[in-house]
Amino acid sequence: MSSTAQEKLVHSFRDYVKKLMSYQQAISLLHWDMRTQAPRRGMGARAELISTLAAEKFALSTAAQFGEYLEELSEPSVFATLDPITQGTVTECKKEYERSRKLPPDKYKEFVLLTNQAETIWAEAREKNDFALFRPYLERIVKAKLEFINYWGYEGNKYNTLLDIYEPDLTVEQLDEMFAALRQKIVPLVSAIAASPHKPDTSCLTQSFGLAEQEAFSRYILERIGYDFEAGRLDKSVHPFAISIAPTDVRITTRYDQNHFNVALFGCIHEAGHAIYEQNISLDLLWTPLCDGASMGIHESQSRYWENMVGRSRRFWDHFYPDLVKAFPAQFSGVSIEQFYHAINEVTPSMIRVEADELTYNLHIMIRYEIEKGLINETIEVGELPRIWNAKMEEYLGIVPANDREGVLQDVHWSGGEFGYFPTYSLGNVYAAQFAHAMRKQIGNYDELIATGEFAPIRSWLKENIHQYGKMKKPNELLADVTGETMNANYLIDYLESKYKAIYQL
Amino acid sequence: MSSTAQEKLVHSFRDYVKKLMSYQQAISLLHWDMRTQAPRRGMGARAELISTLAAEKFALSTAAQFGEYLEELSEPSVFATLDPITQGTVTECKKEYERSRKLPPDKYKEFVLLTNQAETIWAEAREKNDFALFRPYLERIVKAKLEFINYWGYEGNKYNTLLDIYEPDLTVEQLDEMFAALRQKIVPLVSAIAASPHKPDTSCLTQSFGLAEQEAFSRYILERIGYDFEAGRLDKSVHPFAISIAPTDVRITTRYDQNHFNVALFGCIHEAGHAIYEQNISLDLLWTPLCDGASMGIHESQSRYWENMVGRSRRFWDHFYPDLVKAFPAQFSGVSIEQFYHAINEVTPSMIRVEADELTYNLHIMIRYEIEKGLINETIEVGELPRIWNAKMEEYLGIVPANDREGVLQDVHWSGGEFGYFPTYSLGNVYAAQFAHAMRKQIGNYDELIATGEFAPIRSWLKENIHQYGKMKKPNELLADVTGETMNANYLIDYLESKYKAIYQL
Repeated sequence: MSSTAQEKLVHSFRDYVKKLMSYQQAISLLHWDMRTQAPRRGMGARAELISTLAAEKFALSTAAQFGEYLEELSEPSVFATLDPITQGTVTECKKEYERSRKLPPDKYKEFVLLTNQAETIWAEAREKNDFALFRPYLERIVKAKLEFINYWGYEGNKYNTLLDIYEPDLTVEQLDEMFAALRQKIVPLVSAIAASPHKPDTSCLTQSFGLAEQEAFSRYILERIGYDFEAGRLDKSVHPFAISIAPTDVRITTRYDQNHFNVALFGCIHEAGHAIYEQNISLDLLWTPLCDGASMGIHESQSRYWENMVGRSRRFWDHFYPDLVKAFPAQFSGVSIEQFYHAINEVTPSMIRVEADELTYNLHIMIRYEIEKGLINETIEVGELPRIWNAKMEEYLGIVPANDREGVLQDVHWSGGEFGYFPTYSLGNVYAAQFAHAMRKQIGNYDELIATGEFAPIRSWLKENIHQYGKMKKPNELLADVTGETMNANYLIDYLESKYKAIYQL
Repeated sequence: MSSTAQEKLVHSFRDYVKKLMSYQQAISLLHWDMRTQAPRRGMGARAELISTLAAEKFALSTAAQFGEYLEELSEPSVFATLDPITQGTVTECKKEYERSRKLPPDKYKEFVLLTNQAETIWAEAREKNDFALFRPYLERIVKAKLEFINYWGYEGNKYNTLLDIYEPDLTVEQLDEMFAALRQKIVPLVSAIAASPHKPDTSCLTQSFGLAEQEAFSRYILERIGYDFEAGRLDKSVHPFAISIAPTDVRITTRYDQNHFNVALFGCIHEAGHAIYEQNISLDLLWTPLCDGASMGIHESQSRYWENMVGRSRRFWDHFYPDLVKAFPAQFSGVSIEQFYHAINEVTPSMIRVEADELTYNLHIMIRYEIEKGLINETIEVGELPRIWNAKMEEYLGIVPANDREGVLQDVHWSGGEFGYFPTYSLGNVYAAQFAHAMRKQIGNYDELIATGEFAPIRSWLKENIHQYGKMKKPNELLADVTGETMNANYLIDYLESKYKAIYQL
């Protein structure tokens, strides 16, 4: 190809991709608006609008024209001469393109329809506490996923193909090893904690907290940790989330519970962790699919890092507790920092994943991982799920759900066919501990920075080592570059053991 | 064409149009968001996103494929068998399609670029009070518009072609007659008012009004007149506007002036007038270009009707004044309803159109109309504008701008090439008076309804006679169906004379 022809090709390709990303940005804003503030009566037309634009985006992203661009640009002699961002864009788009094109369009449409129905049925089943209602849909979803894997192909374990969607290159072997390590250390730690007489007094967290004061304090903390309000907003929504329109416009939401202090503040810090990541992706990546987190796991590492390793650390509150007491004098004047710190780190086995503490959370994920792996490898049948779920809850957490609503029916993910997603939550914790360890080694006064509320050097480190790259590096590559290691659960285990043995005096 | 083939064709065409309208909805929300709440740093990427989607929409709306649909469906034997909504959609799309296709794409692109630059230069010229800076751009814009008219063709007067963009079928002949009638009656009325010793005391309006209280009272009035908050929102923006995403989601904005009562409330009622129109368009028209006001003039008739003929009427305040006094006791307890009513209807010749009162407003529009007509018929040159502007201000309003910033440079419209738009503002007033007259005849207790704050029957009448049709009827057709007449300025003149002669005791 002549260099002029190639320049023209790259230009057309990048324009095409920009169009695709423009749909994505518009859809993101339409979603955000729908979930925060759109008027009630507008929901029907809004859902239709999003579905039209999503279909349009899908059509563009699977068009033969796009395939031709990708083929021409992937040709080794051409690819080698492309700039790195175009290279990354070609690679990322090609992966998505092939994933979409390998599925027969009818099968895909059928699946979208099925999961749309299944989500409604799941909500009803949970409401009515009736797994039997949901079971036939889940069976069809698992069957469809197995068909998809047939179309897509797999290496080693069928489940690897699903993991790869959320966490590129992640394998069952790695997860088995990771969860084995977590199981071996955390199950006994949770038992020991349950037996400890040194229980935190959490009464300080369940007083009455004015919503305006909670919002003001949350905004203060968000500003201090470095969420950029000039490139974002904080709003209310039923389910908190972070959403990036562009790195210059990354919005977060939270909900406020008058009677529980943790909900808004730690929710805000969590979503801000996601948002700080997106706000610091290089603007060179705008209008490409690389302008995104490296993976779900890396994304979650950022939210968990800020929420738990910073926001629930003793050093953080050494600095901010006086501010908290000033913001809520009636509630915290008589509460020692020790009591508050223990309270926000209470460990209690509980039924609901999204309400779980930092330690038991990983056990909830492990249960889902083992079940998904079993379903996809056809060693578990959907009909057995309630029984298996409850047995695993008893084995790992020592408690048994009273019903399926607080058991196997609690999460929406499976109704959407999102198998392979759950493990990335624990992976986020594992990565976060690895990154924190690297920071402590590489930033001289790391602990002191947290204890003095000086987060700029930490954010700079994160930006330089992780954030700026967006999806330019795969998770493994990022991890290797930043920590010199592969994924390793021991840092998380060390962190959890040292933190919780101290709190529970074990 | 076989009936199956035709069904298929109609289906493809309607899908295509739905896609076009989906772009429009998305762009509307992106605009709304940008103007109400998007974070500062996100503006650059947002402008780029909107421009990408707008270009995409333009490409779709001028594609050969679309032209083929339109040609096939316009074929008389086919057209005659279509349902009315598809017929209307074909007609509307064909008009737009032909307007776009008649322009050479390069000329159009050049014009978009020119007006983008011109808007920036206009803002600078206004800031610096320097018409010479803006003059060459305006000259090029006028020249481009004349070229466009050559491509589009015209009947009678060249300016008719531009009027038709905003007000289908409106002609210079009609406007000349309308403005002659207004000039003949309103210029002397304004002079008589200026000479009247009975000047309203407006001091009650310029006290300090809490912003939260202003918002609460505005919301109360909006609810009472029937703006549906379940299908809309009220937010703040620098320049107030109403925007429809869909009839189920029509949003309005306002601004609050701590020191002037009129700004927020009457701005809200005005925008709600636009919004109530859009909220009541038949949902059968959703996803077609018919889901819009019949014309700019008809749209403006709704905002002016609610703002002035209802919101600034004595009967309206007979009912609501006690509520106002309750909402602002410190400000209005000692003010009689008479004083308040006179104050909100003060007539004073002033320089700035957007701040003008109900009566002199039309004279501001007349000046712009005469100038536009002259420019497009090449009887006026751009270089003469400051002199002509000031002369007309003196002739009609009896005052002369001290500089071009408060004269010829005050409006943004011309920098965007929007010639033909201004007259629709006065047309809105004329239509509103015609509709109000029809209502008074057709709704038995019309005056009593306003005096008791019972607006449901009025809204029903508006919905049944005007709103539901959207763009299904042309303005002339709508007017004939509703009033049995053509456009007639005498109703407006009668209304204004009777109202203001009473207030000023003439």
